[in-house]
Amino acid sequence: MAGLSARSVLVTGSNRGIGLELVRQLLGHPNPPQWIFATCRDPEGASAQELKNLASKHQSLVRVSLEVTNPASVKAAMARVTEHLKGAGLNLLINNAGIVRVTTLDSETPEDMSFVYTTNVIGPMLVSQAFLPLLKKAAQGSTQKGLSCNRAAIVNMSSSGGSITDVFAWDLGHVVSYRCSKAALNMLSRCQSLSYGADGILCLALHPGWVQTDMGNFNEDLSRAEDSVRGILNVLAVLSEKDNGTFLDWEGKTLPW
Amino acid sequence: MAGLSARSVLVTGSNRGIGLELVRQLLGHPNPPQWIFATCRDPEGASAQELKNLASKHQSLVRVSLEVTNPASVKAAMARVTEHLKGAGLNLLINNAGIVRVTTLDSETPEDMSFVYTTNVIGPMLVSQAFLPLLKKAAQGSTQKGLSCNRAAIVNMSSSGGSITDVFAWDLGHVVSYRCSKAALNMLSRCQSLSYGADGILCLALHPGWVQTDMGNFNEDLSRAEDSVRGILNVLAVLSEKDNGTFLDWEGKTLPW
Ligand SMILES: NC(=O)c1ccc[n+]([C@@H]2O[C@H](COP(=O)([O-])OP(=O)(O)OC[C@H]3O[C@@H](n4cnc5c(N)ncnc54)[C@H](OP(=O)(O)O)[C@@H]3O)[C@@H](O)[C@H]2O)c1
Ligand SMILES: NC(=O)c1ccc[n+]([C@@H]2O[C@H](COP(=O)([O-])OP(=O)(O)OC[C@H]3O[C@@H](n4cnc5c(N)ncnc54)[C@H](OP(=O)(O)O)[C@@H]3O)[C@@H](O)[C@H]2O)c1
Repeated sequence: MAGLSARSVLVTGSNRGIGLELVRQLLGHPNPPQWIFATCRDPEGASAQELKNLASKHQSLVRVSLEVTNPASVKAAMARVTEHLKGAGLNLLINNAGIVRVTTLDSETPEDMSFVYTTNVIGPMLVSQAFLPLLKKAAQGSTQKGLSCNRAAIVNMSSSGGSITDVFAWDLGHVVSYRCSKAALNMLSRCQSLSYGADGILCLALHPGWVQTDMGNFNEDLSRAEDSVRGILNVLAVLSEKDNGTFLDWEGKTLPW
Repeated sequence: MAGLSARSVLVTGSNRGIGLELVRQLLGHPNPPQWIFATCRDPEGASAQELKNLASKHQSLVRVSLEVTNPASVKAAMARVTEHLKGAGLNLLINNAGIVRVTTLDSETPEDMSFVYTTNVIGPMLVSQAFLPLLKKAAQGSTQKGLSCNRAAIVNMSSSGGSITDVFAWDLGHVVSYRCSKAALNMLSRCQSLSYGADGILCLALHPGWVQTDMGNFNEDLSRAEDSVRGILNVLAVLSEKDNGTFLDWEGKTLPW
């Protein structure tokens, strides 16, 4: 992670799982970001206790309320972040919040399909639209050339389960609503890369590995969140132009769409 | 189309565009299906006049009311088709109904994202779930081995615009809600192929080409629906085991996910 020097980072769904570990490791870095916007649905609630503890020790950690599917909440979060940045841009947006419904192809319902799509695709779209002006500002204000996470980037947390080519781990779970949502999120990432690359914003889809969290609990063969996030931060540190619009995993390997 | 000998075919969204032309050419075949279930939202309305005219000349054409996003409508359509089939199965389900919203990445709204996903992905999922027992019956009752459209198949009308690899014709239109929905439909098709292949049902995603219809009206360089559908029926006629879970176009070419 030596190379990651983004001055400001925003993480959605940062009260637990991979999101929380991202915040922890960003705080623990020898050269940490000036601002870490740790967003979650209920920053004052019991589910954000760990974030509260961290905030009491780190002034750079700003807890922000953000329900990614609610346009009013997204707008309010953007206003709060803008205020904190005092005219500076946002370097790195990590759309990490996500949800899974354990279903089979035959038991899949319209309600679950909609709910998962709304959280995993429409959420990242809304959040990216709202923070785009701040990302553009960071890209314009940067002395760096080319694309990088230190300059300006949108990282969408996808999943190898969303690979249409592989349909990874089908036998472990159909989770069709989840797979469809992550394939669509990959498409969104590609579209963002085509539009925003020219603005100096790197956009990609990232698979964090199979990680022990509330979501990742289906077998024993999972990585620890610490290891996944260490890998992710190492990968983010070295991304450049050539990675715009790609689908990478936590070890930097390219996954097939 | 010499080889296509499915005894029963159901087409969604068959009152205009590619769906209507599919019905026309199936009726005109020297060895036409015994039953063509031409479904649309309002079979008695003005928008289905052409289907009514065809039905007055062809006893094999059964007009069925089907709003693909409405579970009650899907269930009622399934009951009507079951009645007509008198114990036989359904050979070929063509999930053709679809919608596009002309948008840019920045103007895309949650409402359009949801609406397009519901029509283009949840609709085909619901329709496939409902007709699965009839497709299984056709597969079991068939004297044919292996997979084919004559035995039992689900054909999902996708689009090359849903190719994550290509993001085809980006400069002609972002249509992010549409692209995301078709990428997700491709994933659904792959999932269906993994589950239903073992039941003797072939499942795939098909790009009909760029065709002059109400939807396909964005430039001059489009095929006629007649040519597209002639190609599609030729392709469907020769599909086999090896095509299960693939993404083909109207000329039989494989498209990248
Ligand atoms: N774990 C794995 O093995 C794995 C594998 C592949 C991909 N991923 C992806 O990695 C990301 C993080 O996964 P995880 O394992 O850390 O999951 P997790 O432990 O279940 O945490 C999910 C996080 O997302 C938040 N969230 C859900 N819906 C939200 C919404 N509408 N608005 C705001 N926040 C919302 C949750 O907040 P609440 O506490 O308020 O619910 C929580 O903070 C997800 O996108 C997931 O799909 C995980
Ligand atoms: N035309 C092209 O160039 C092109 C290219 C790639 C892929 N495709 C795909 O090919 C398929 C057919 O396209 P097309 O060009 O023939 O489109 P079209 O002329 O716009 O016709 C769309 C059909 O879908 C029906 N439909 C829409 N929503 C429905 C719903 N909720 N329930 C039932 N029926 C519904 C419409 O019925 P109403 O009359 O009631 O609205 C109409 O019959 C679509 O899936 C499209 O995405 C087309």
